Amino acid sequence: MRKTTIGVIGSSGEIPGSAGDEIMRLARQVGAEIAKAGAVLVSGGTTGVMAAVSQGAREAEGFVVGFLPEADYSRASPDLDIAFPTGMGTMRNLLTARCCDALMMIGGGAGTLNELTIAYDFGTPVVVVEGSGGWADRIRPALFEGAWLDERRTVAIGFASSAVAAVDEAMRRAAEPKSTRSLPVHVGSAGA
Amino acid sequence: MRKTTIGVIGSSGEIPGSAGDEIMRLARQVGAEIAKAGAVLVSGGTTGVMAAVSQGAREAEGFVVGFLPEADYSRASPDLDIAFPTGMGTMRNLLTARCCDALMMIGGGAGTLNELTIAYDFGTPVVVVEGSGGWADRIRPALFEGAWLDERRTVAIGFASSAVAAVDEAMRRAAEPKSTRSLPVHVGSAGA
Amino acid sequence: MRKTTIGVIGSSGEIPGSAGDEIMRLARQVGAEIAKAGAVLVSGGTTGVMAAVSQGAREAEGFVVGFLPEADYSRASPDLDIAFPTGMGTMRNLLTARCCDALMMIGGGAGTLNELTIAYDFGTPVVVVEGSGGWADRIRPALFEGAWLDERRTVAIGFASSAVAAVDEAMRRAAEPKSTRSLPVHVGSAGA
Amino acid sequence: MRKTTIGVIGSSGEIPGSAGDEIMRLARQVGAEIAKAGAVLVSGGTTGVMAAVSQGAREAEGFVVGFLPEADYSRASPDLDIAFPTGMGTMRNLLTARCCDALMMIGGGAGTLNELTIAYDFGTPVVVVEGSGGWADRIRPALFEGAWLDERRTVAIGFASSAVAAVDEAMRRAAEPKSTRSLPVHVGSAGA
Repeated sequence: MRKTTIGVIGSSGEIPGSAGDEIMRLARQVGAEIAKAGAVLVSGGTTGVMAAVSQGAREAEGFVVGFLPEADYSRASPDLDIAFPTGMGTMRNLLTARCCDALMMIGGGAGTLNELTIAYDFGTPVVVVEGSGGWADRIRPALFEGAWLDERRTVAIGFASSAVAAVDEAMRRAAEPKSTRSLPVHVGSAGA
Repeated sequence: MRKTTIGVIGSSGEIPGSAGDEIMRLARQVGAEIAKAGAVLVSGGTTGVMAAVSQGAREAEGFVVGFLPEADYSRASPDLDIAFPTGMGTMRNLLTARCCDALMMIGGGAGTLNELTIAYDFGTPVVVVEGSGGWADRIRPALFEGAWLDERRTVAIGFASSAVAAVDEAMRRAAEPKSTRSLPVHVGSAGA
Repeated sequence: MRKTTIGVIGSSGEIPGSAGDEIMRLARQVGAEIAKAGAVLVSGGTTGVMAAVSQGAREAEGFVVGFLPEADYSRASPDLDIAFPTGMGTMRNLLTARCCDALMMIGGGAGTLNELTIAYDFGTPVVVVEGSGGWADRIRPALFEGAWLDERRTVAIGFASSAVAAVDEAMRRAAEPKSTRSLPVHVGSAGA
Repeated sequence: MRKTTIGVIGSSGEIPGSAGDEIMRLARQVGAEIAKAGAVLVSGGTTGVMAAVSQGAREAEGFVVGFLPEADYSRASPDLDIAFPTGMGTMRNLLTARCCDALMMIGGGAGTLNELTIAYDFGTPVVVVEGSGGWADRIRPALFEGAWLDERRTVAIGFASSAVAAVDEAMRRAAEPKSTRSLPVHVGSAGA
């Protein structure tokens, strides 16, 4: 009865130029794939990647939840089924990062990196969409053994190179029992 | 598109005897009425009143969300559509109390009183179901002018004496713009 | 080496008239007594009762800490030795309420009642200064058996009728091991 | 009257071998320098780097505060003047990261990286002690333009290669008004 929840973390900002267009297209595709997989999409609920992924999910008849930093709905994406106006500011990052069965990371700035660290600490699996810019592309060379945020090896960070592969991997990780989540990194592949 | 969210706060504990049976029956009815009103039910997602209200909502084909104190699903009500395992312990009280369009209070101990104070501070309207025991019955004589937690008169606490009246009032309060929420207390009425 | 921490919770607002003057005088006296007892004073660090108690503690050469709701020092009391600009807004209430060895409650509105519920949940002993107005005077008739916020009897709420008696009781409660904190309520007495 | 607060973030774990010994020696020296500079040392208050820096500060007669993840004092460093048992688990990271005038980073795993992201988001200047291992050595190549966590350029991350240089720089950054904190990165230098 309880639905699988897949969170998407990524920048709230506009990304200029054709690179930005491409990332937003990717985000919409990720949202659509999450919807098709039957999972609930959870995000920070506002603009940028969060808006694009929400739009993609809703167009594919998915169910979309957003944890807003504001105390009201003024910046909520129009594609949310449920919006939670936390009034927690950026502290709301911990909700998306902790409360989902798996996370996907598309591009991202400091806030997205913050969510990645929270997810890792909490044991939430994260699948990074390669080639999506920002910390999604910067984090890998900085990882321990290419997969971990530190030598505790809490939960391996996965990488995938397309929307389809990333959602497949996120759904697979979401289904793992917590106790076996800390497995070697999986690398997704192939066309979107 | 975005759905109205109605939170229910109340004790997680078992309430012994026929009084307890009556309160659980009331909670199920409240859940059913929220579902019939087309709103999403939000609660702390575990046991006691939270389980009963979730059961009632689901039996009436509503949509049910729970903010769990635990980091896993071990104590989640089986009637949740979405469960968020916050790992925040009782700090998760602020999520239900802040993030809904209106709250309903059924009975309740210290945790429920905590949620009432958070809701008041945040401007979330609360409708207390009279006769449901605990702080629902203890709070009224202690209020300022029968309606407020302090002289700031942030948002009036309402009272209703039946499940139907309480949900009607909660839906009415939920529809108010924030700026006009601090209105005189409304007292519901009539049979459960 | 580690110092005892005594928190004071109370209204940030101005209290008009001679009743207000009396409460501020009482708060300064409480601060002074905490300093004389060798404990660190902890509060929300801003205005009203928090400013008065901080002033009293510093004039008696105590050490004063404030957990500010703001992200900066703009509203910090000038009498703080250490100010923590949490940027958490009223969520910072949980810091004072959880992180002290014992709390004292002077008057207070909804925020103070919020802190009382957090302290009770967390097992922090609270001593209410009787006759100080607000929730300090409203809470007692609403308690379970005159001492508890609910039937779980987590930690008894104490009452005292003077600054000296209240600080004595708070220091006594602060010294209790956590496991024996839930004892019958102690009622302080005698001249301010 | 209000004291400057310098936070130190770093790993709670033991670091094996002579590299570990060297990092602990460095941490004690950082603590001593913070004390000599007249600032209050703030940390997560438990083991590893936090214990070493606290020991160094106390031996130099500084004042030491710890925000503990636990709800009790069981894992508190013996060198704390004030310990706050937050019971927030790793969510307490936000307190050290937000509430200090400046932060210093020594080595560090995922939790330290989490604190770095919070500090950056909040505008708290961070000085990384180079050569101290962990994320202190991994983060620089991953930064935007060698100084920022993202293109927003919120507040520049500084680097210093000795305890003395790092504390000098942290004290300098702590004295900056918030509005001018986002300045070009300063690189400390030379012998400990």
